[in-house]
Amino acid sequence: MRFDLFSLFPSIFQSYFEVSILQKAISKGLVEVGIHNIRDWTFDKHHITDDTPYGGGGGMVMKAEPIFTAIEDVLGKPPACPVILMSPQGRLFSFKIAHELAELPHIAILCGRYEGIDERVREHLITDQISIGDFVVTGGEIPAMLLVDAISRQIKGVLGDPTGAEDDSFSNGLLEYPHYTKPEEFRGWRVPEVLLSGHHAKIEKWRREQSLYRTYIQRPDLLKNIDLSENDLKLLSKFQQERTQELPSNSDNFQG
Amino acid sequence: MRFDLFSLFPSIFQSYFEVSILQKAISKGLVEVGIHNIRDWTFDKHHITDDTPYGGGGGMVMKAEPIFTAIEDVLGKPPACPVILMSPQGRLFSFKIAHELAELPHIAILCGRYEGIDERVREHLITDQISIGDFVVTGGEIPAMLLVDAISRQIKGVLGDPTGAEDDSFSNGLLEYPHYTKPEEFRGWRVPEVLLSGHHAKIEKWRREQSLYRTYIQRPDLLKNIDLSENDLKLLSKFQQERTQELPSNSDNFQG
Repeated sequence: MRFDLFSLFPSIFQSYFEVSILQKAISKGLVEVGIHNIRDWTFDKHHITDDTPYGGGGGMVMKAEPIFTAIEDVLGKPPACPVILMSPQGRLFSFKIAHELAELPHIAILCGRYEGIDERVREHLITDQISIGDFVVTGGEIPAMLLVDAISRQIKGVLGDPTGAEDDSFSNGLLEYPHYTKPEEFRGWRVPEVLLSGHHAKIEKWRREQSLYRTYIQRPDLLKNIDLSENDLKLLSKFQQERTQELPSNSDNFQG
Repeated sequence: MRFDLFSLFPSIFQSYFEVSILQKAISKGLVEVGIHNIRDWTFDKHHITDDTPYGGGGGMVMKAEPIFTAIEDVLGKPPACPVILMSPQGRLFSFKIAHELAELPHIAILCGRYEGIDERVREHLITDQISIGDFVVTGGEIPAMLLVDAISRQIKGVLGDPTGAEDDSFSNGLLEYPHYTKPEEFRGWRVPEVLLSGHHAKIEKWRREQSLYRTYIQRPDLLKNIDLSENDLKLLSKFQQERTQELPSNSDNFQG
């Protein structure tokens, strides 16, 4: 899969793509990343990429022309792949969207900076807008790195482990169960006995129960979107009973 | 405000903190960032920071001891400031949480890697868990950079502009209005006339209407949490009427 990133601060990406799974995915040829400095497509003396907003107000606005020119020069006119703008106005990024985008052979990501970006870019060049949450950061570079990382993890072969991303939080719709590694005892805190038992079925059962419990406590909204087995439903009903006994005023119903 | 970041891949942070507002905030002394390599607190021959999970399964788990040792060595025992774990299991990061954390003088952020982190760290060292969304990335470094950026923007003096972050999306509870900069016409697409009028009150009115409209169309959930003026409510009611005429089956009610 190929990613083309367009930014005014391309150096931000450098150290990230040099480490960890992304570097490996790139060197294995599973992922290609093109990084483009929008400033290279300005042809005035001062290489201006932003200017004051019409109508007044603080901040600067990214000009339309260098962005159109850069993207069309690299990707064709019209661009040969989806062009995503990282923006708090977009659809909220999720595991599901990462999975959906990982099916594509090629995407481009435009990283905005400053106060904003000329609206004509959004109207006439961008094909998709993605937000990474209800907060504002200075530029789209960090959100773009999140996208590239989360999407790449879904591409076959990128994670060395054959089970890949299957155990990640959200991949089965639930939060992850707790993990423990050596030593068995640290400062008097012991690893749960079941994990030391070597009894595979019991371990699986414990892990499922822990995942369900955490999701029930911390993110009950996630339970509405997944297929629960008969045993899962029994467990949830047990959690609910225990909780109702502790907190008689609790009226949540996870089965929604 | 001081941020202490604990990671196994501290080089990831380097290029980001060298550019843009964060670099300026650091050089002005408004923000201090300490970056710590957890591996520096391993005392075995091979500097091991992770190991296989008890109970089996894929992936590696970050060991408790180097993390406890690193954080306590830098921050005291118990740590002198909140210690936040970036985790999909945490509370969802938002503009409101950025604002809340910007009031603190000092926070530490632990960036997990690999399959997970020994549960004893979560139970006995971490004081807060923050998620940046329902998706999984390889490590907590990129999410931590998002936090540092979004929080720093809320600190007085960090944004050069005196109106600061006031116009950002979410700061008034709404999505941002559209921005335009020169030229007035680009490829036949013109800037809206009102923005060229110089009529301040009309421009303000247009911007408010645009913000409300975008929020109504794209994120009606946000409208429930803000104080709407009488005029805002009139506008929303107009949008709703127009939409109902287009889409007779639409039964959304933004006034919830």
